[in-house]
Amino acid sequence: MLTDARAPIALLFDVFGTVVDWRGSIIREARRAGRRKGQSTDWEAFADAWRAGYRPAMDRVRRGELPWVKLDHLHRMILDELIERFGLRFSEREKRELNAAWHRLSPWPDVVRGLERLKRRYCIGTLSNGNVALLVDMARHERLPWDCVFSAELFRRYKPDSEVYLGAAELLGLPPRDVMLVAAHKDDLAAARRCGLKTAFVRRPLEHGPAGRLDLSDDPRSMVNADDFIDLARKLGA
Amino acid sequence: MLTDARAPIALLFDVFGTVVDWRGSIIREARRAGRRKGQSTDWEAFADAWRAGYRPAMDRVRRGELPWVKLDHLHRMILDELIERFGLRFSEREKRELNAAWHRLSPWPDVVRGLERLKRRYCIGTLSNGNVALLVDMARHERLPWDCVFSAELFRRYKPDSEVYLGAAELLGLPPRDVMLVAAHKDDLAAARRCGLKTAFVRRPLEHGPAGRLDLSDDPRSMVNADDFIDLARKLGA
Repeated sequence: MLTDARAPIALLFDVFGTVVDWRGSIIREARRAGRRKGQSTDWEAFADAWRAGYRPAMDRVRRGELPWVKLDHLHRMILDELIERFGLRFSEREKRELNAAWHRLSPWPDVVRGLERLKRRYCIGTLSNGNVALLVDMARHERLPWDCVFSAELFRRYKPDSEVYLGAAELLGLPPRDVMLVAAHKDDLAAARRCGLKTAFVRRPLEHGPAGRLDLSDDPRSMVNADDFIDLARKLGA
Repeated sequence: MLTDARAPIALLFDVFGTVVDWRGSIIREARRAGRRKGQSTDWEAFADAWRAGYRPAMDRVRRGELPWVKLDHLHRMILDELIERFGLRFSEREKRELNAAWHRLSPWPDVVRGLERLKRRYCIGTLSNGNVALLVDMARHERLPWDCVFSAELFRRYKPDSEVYLGAAELLGLPPRDVMLVAAHKDDLAAARRCGLKTAFVRRPLEHGPAGRLDLSDDPRSMVNADDFIDLARKLGA
């Protein structure tokens, strides 16, 4: 357990993969949307391709090739390509509805209980590339008890740009060392540490499905390594 | 009760005066700080003067005479003047502690129960000139169940500048007509309506204390006029 002197004041959470099971949720929603139209495809491959489109689309914004756009818009650009590539047909209304599936992702089973424990001792919030409306809808849908919802959208920069981590600490009125980023992705944690934040690595072995390959080894540079949010709460004394 | 067709999707709340009793809270905290140092003065006048300094200080930012600064900083500038004017003595640590009293303001007695009801049907959030850390601390301190915490700080403009109202609707991904501002101040409501938001007026007869004079008449331009947040919940069908 951390001593008080080393403990952060606020915990900010990466969301996709760390808090919610985007893959299982998107497979489920896409399959349901397809079934309603009598269309079928490899919905697992479809979900993976949707997520795989995210990093390159975001990097175009990060490099300045695209002006700032919300993640909802990037998701929709990728969806439109995928519908072509997978030979599917959806109306405009159905596409909008399917794109909003990212607002309804389900959390991993330990999340709500873990966050409720952590909230007693720490200020808890998101720090996600998801846009504000997406994160607020998700929190309402799944009763995620955030104290604050911080998004890349507030800074018009995507993680891992430093403006996002530093901007969040500034909004909290805290020096970066009093803020801890919690994430299942070591590159996100490394970028946060470069800005002076503390970090905690949480293993999410199923993020890419049962067959997905992930680096689940401890992150030696992180202050805490945890198996889930209950384990995180215990290790953070909450 | 509003029909569904006219009902908003999100309710954004002005905070100082509308959600919290800033005057009662500041009098209490300032008196306590004074007692610890064996100092006394007219703490009611002190609280009123602190609040009275807020509008002119903010207007200097709005006119561009001061660069953007958080409300915490404006409060501190005013506090430093008042300590002189009232002939008080506080150490730097005590001044910082007293300035943070604005992060610990108490809500009116109907607020938590009213917000919990409203949250079942509507997305609820702040839309305040208070900075993010102030609003997040207050919510944690008083268990205010916000779905989102929006602040003038996110837009680096103070209400009643239109960027604040329009920026909040944009973050929610909603057209302004789907957002309702709830406030005890008719000028705030009028500015929101000029941006296309719906408005609700809530009477807070004690905002300026038992002797305070306030316009408590119905706001004919607002869609709802309410006596408190329970009444508001009832009138909004929540």
